[in-house]
Amino acid sequence: MALIVQKFGGSSVANAERVFNVAKIITDCYSLGNDVVVVLSAQGDTTDELIEKAHEINPNPSRRELDALMSTGEQISVCLMAMAIERLGFPVVSLTGWQADVRTTSHHSDAKIKKIGLDRLRMELDRRNIVLVTGFQGVNKYGDVTTLGRGGSDTSAVALACALKANLCQIYTDVDGVYTADPRTVPNARKLDQITYGEMLELASLGAKVLHNRSVELAKSYHMELEVLSSFTNKPGTIVKEAVSRMEKTLISGVARDDKIARIALTHLKNEPGVAYRIFSLLAKNHINIDIIIQSIGREDTKDISFTVPLDLKDETVQVLNDAKGALGFERMDVSDTSSKISVVGAGIVNNPGVAAMVFEALYEADININMISTSEIKISVLIDKEDAEKAVRVIHDKFFN
Amino acid sequence: MALIVQKFGGSSVANAERVFNVAKIITDCYSLGNDVVVVLSAQGDTTDELIEKAHEINPNPSRRELDALMSTGEQISVCLMAMAIERLGFPVVSLTGWQADVRTTSHHSDAKIKKIGLDRLRMELDRRNIVLVTGFQGVNKYGDVTTLGRGGSDTSAVALACALKANLCQIYTDVDGVYTADPRTVPNARKLDQITYGEMLELASLGAKVLHNRSVELAKSYHMELEVLSSFTNKPGTIVKEAVSRMEKTLISGVARDDKIARIALTHLKNEPGVAYRIFSLLAKNHINIDIIIQSIGREDTKDISFTVPLDLKDETVQVLNDAKGALGFERMDVSDTSSKISVVGAGIVNNPGVAAMVFEALYEADININMISTSEIKISVLIDKEDAEKAVRVIHDKFFN
Repeated sequence: MALIVQKFGGSSVANAERVFNVAKIITDCYSLGNDVVVVLSAQGDTTDELIEKAHEINPNPSRRELDALMSTGEQISVCLMAMAIERLGFPVVSLTGWQADVRTTSHHSDAKIKKIGLDRLRMELDRRNIVLVTGFQGVNKYGDVTTLGRGGSDTSAVALACALKANLCQIYTDVDGVYTADPRTVPNARKLDQITYGEMLELASLGAKVLHNRSVELAKSYHMELEVLSSFTNKPGTIVKEAVSRMEKTLISGVARDDKIARIALTHLKNEPGVAYRIFSLLAKNHINIDIIIQSIGREDTKDISFTVPLDLKDETVQVLNDAKGALGFERMDVSDTSSKISVVGAGIVNNPGVAAMVFEALYEADININMISTSEIKISVLIDKEDAEKAVRVIHDKFFN
Repeated sequence: MALIVQKFGGSSVANAERVFNVAKIITDCYSLGNDVVVVLSAQGDTTDELIEKAHEINPNPSRRELDALMSTGEQISVCLMAMAIERLGFPVVSLTGWQADVRTTSHHSDAKIKKIGLDRLRMELDRRNIVLVTGFQGVNKYGDVTTLGRGGSDTSAVALACALKANLCQIYTDVDGVYTADPRTVPNARKLDQITYGEMLELASLGAKVLHNRSVELAKSYHMELEVLSSFTNKPGTIVKEAVSRMEKTLISGVARDDKIARIALTHLKNEPGVAYRIFSLLAKNHINIDIIIQSIGREDTKDISFTVPLDLKDETVQVLNDAKGALGFERMDVSDTSSKISVVGAGIVNNPGVAAMVFEALYEADININMISTSEIKISVLIDKEDAEKAVRVIHDKFFN
């Protein structure tokens, strides 16, 4: 007997038929003698519909009220799932974020989980209830409802698994695991049986929309084993853990593509200490996540700094930087959203200097120009024109897997 | 400066335009220097839509999960209203039942308010926030969400007004006050400026769908002055209070009609003490509200007991009684739902024996047969065939008001 946390995304519970499909997965797991805690997202497009309703009233509502509004989507999901499980004849209880005592920071719409009180959860498990918990939400120290931001349900699930010391955290999605590349554009992409936290982190942050980044970080800190699998097929998925033993000897675990980025370049910055610090601490303070950063010597003893941000933060980033133009001391800001980021991820990259060369070779052979390069111990990312992105993924994938 | 509690029903906040209409009423009241606490129902048909969603999954869900599901309707209302008020530039905060610390009994779908903790509410008022509270819901001692049953938002509003010692509780609806009869069927019906709690109680329980009965009872216990008025017109409504001074000398305050009743007759009961006790304590235990009760001597030293129940409890009542047929000892049960109840209400009835005679005279002149009669100090009710109901209201109203 084990304690298993399962998470199902919005598409897995989008209508009554799918709700029952998921109810079957949950109750099958429970019937094996397991304790089961389930985290659910809002059904289908509910969150978008609620945002639309809000914007009809107020294009710029407070984040506190928006969080309270959005949190109803997951509440509806868990209640309907509880009713489905009741109908199948199993004991079940649904809990909201505050009922499950998911305590978060106060930063509305992007709160972090601080602590999960376990009294209520343990009591319900002791009663042999299947426990359903709303994903994506918690409550701050003032008793206000917070949300964890998009994809936060993954984080809710992993946080619950860690707090409850679960044996496994299963993340059910609409894909049946982690692939070496997007199967829609790379027909010979392979499903991975296992992947390390580090590799998964890179893939998650790179547009391979399988797992939310924060959830993987959390799992890594607590050594919580994750399984990514599909709620539509009945197959084993991909296990995410600390170290993996690969059956095949491959240098990399995947090629990912991210189109939703904007590249921002600040030019003619003073060539003195503290310039980068001022820029990036300002952006961090505004909760803007930076990805690739490149700093280069500019003309006349100045320097240029380029970086990428998520596309939906482009306008906010430009605003924040322009407001501080005097303090930061840049002369020009170039903003572009016509780039894609292609990343190759693999725990073996650090020990195989040849990987980077293989990536560049594949792109050269396909006549694709590289705009920016960034490398880490387990990742090589290049920025290229968006129109070349699909081809780039394919030729890089072929280079490693054929 | 006063503390005013305002309550708006579902039709008053059914769409964005109406939300802003209500936001204007609220902020106008606040701008006069008042502290304002607002209770909202779910928008338009939201509650029905949620019930439909639930029944698609499970025709017989647990009441706990149904309550949790339904409570999202009011949560959406208060968030959207908060956003509208924010847009008008006023300070506002929305609170759910648990955030406003509305503590109830544990009887799901028909919970009673036990206590309202005032810490959060007082804190928000001290900050000069307009405070929006979800109607219809609270939290029980286990931390589970409960609902107060249909029309419970009126009760929420009055309970908050009493707990906060408000100066006035305004119940906004889609009618502009309490009338001497339904203006849709009785063209010369008059709006009352004032009405007593007792009269209002009778009218509320009799299908004059202006105020929820429990809310009036609560207001009566705490001497909380209520005002029933329309959110669509800008006119004074009807004040509900302990004693009223009527400008005109009228014997009664109104004629009401209730079509949603079922009449149940149990025949051949033993003529011994405790029979009625056993029947009605059983029904009370099952939370079935009885209205008119008539007991008559039957044939062969037996007795018959007839009573009316709300139409939507008919099937449940029949089930409960049949399950206890042996213990109760009745021979036959007749169930009919083709009756209407017509009631004449007035604080002066007890001192004017002529009122009953006038009612019977009006019905006699209109050739309408009476099936059951029940009288109290301030009310005379008759059960008649549904097809005669409209005519009956008109002729009785004409008898008193022309």
